[in-house]
Amino acid sequence: MRTRDRIVDAAEQAIREFGIAGATTKRIAQQAGCSEALLYKHFAGKEALFLAVLLERLPALRPALERLRASIGQGDLAGNLAEFALMALEFYTKAAAIASGLLADPSLMAGFRGMLAANDMGPHLPIRALAEILRAEQRGGRLDEGIDADAAASMLMGACFHRANLSYYIDLPEADETWAAAIARTLVRK
Amino acid sequence: MRTRDRIVDAAEQAIREFGIAGATTKRIAQQAGCSEALLYKHFAGKEALFLAVLLERLPALRPALERLRASIGQGDLAGNLAEFALMALEFYTKAAAIASGLLADPSLMAGFRGMLAANDMGPHLPIRALAEILRAEQRGGRLDEGIDADAAASMLMGACFHRANLSYYIDLPEADETWAAAIARTLVRK
Repeated sequence: MRTRDRIVDAAEQAIREFGIAGATTKRIAQQAGCSEALLYKHFAGKEALFLAVLLERLPALRPALERLRASIGQGDLAGNLAEFALMALEFYTKAAAIASGLLADPSLMAGFRGMLAANDMGPHLPIRALAEILRAEQRGGRLDEGIDADAAASMLMGACFHRANLSYYIDLPEADETWAAAIARTLVRK
Repeated sequence: MRTRDRIVDAAEQAIREFGIAGATTKRIAQQAGCSEALLYKHFAGKEALFLAVLLERLPALRPALERLRASIGQGDLAGNLAEFALMALEFYTKAAAIASGLLADPSLMAGFRGMLAANDMGPHLPIRALAEILRAEQRGGRLDEGIDADAAASMLMGACFHRANLSYYIDLPEADETWAAAIARTLVRK
């Protein structure tokens, strides 16, 4: 395994175990079996390392969006959206540990924010991608033209993101599947 | 000013300045002009102190929900919901610093989770309260009976919670008011 991959693996594990605050470069380097100096040769800072964990180690939203895009015009739209919501929920649940660690550390977040802006990246892009898919379904006549696709995408993704966070505070009363189906049905109703 | 209030004020300020990880009881006690021992006489632990900040110092969701409840059957429903969404957005934006600090610290979160369960509290309750209001609007004929009120409430609150978090990562392209109006219109469309 390449050193870089070992470092990303070690970072992911450290975040899961100790939270971002406890995922020090010292601990990560030790776990990866390399020096902190070598870690910093591969990653300019903690921000870049945590971004790598987010992009390379988490069940990403990209495959979920690709799958939904591939199903445009096919199958049951509410069913497709419910399936997508479950995948988004899984992603946000796993991403919460990193996202919260960034938010909880104002200086780390400032660096991360700058890095996202410089690379035209950001957590708002999946909402835009979902809105594009919803617009395609509107053109195909499967979704009411009267729906604001951006608002609908914002609500679907937001509901998943919120529920992922709620699951850390309480035992959610309802099964994810039941919840996702109700969300999708409410969104596409004519 | 009572010692307890001074401690809660100091905690709020420390969280805003240093994040939860940096908001140590030592720093908070110093700022409040009391000993750490006295701080622990008022609060069993950081969890209880942070819960007090959340409940007593943040622009709460409660007045926003009360206002929406008072407007049942009155005015323009989409307008009322858009106004509510803006208040929820403001609350979640301010609460993000504490929420992320809890999530980022697994042992602090475990204590917080236990405290919520013991007191029948939790961040899911505002969704339930909003669903009750939507059901009242359905009974009054102002909202389509075909809408699942729980799912709609989950989406409206989720969209606000998500957007509050997004604002820390990127400069949001759209004004909050424009966004809130589109969300509300999409939710109540017949």
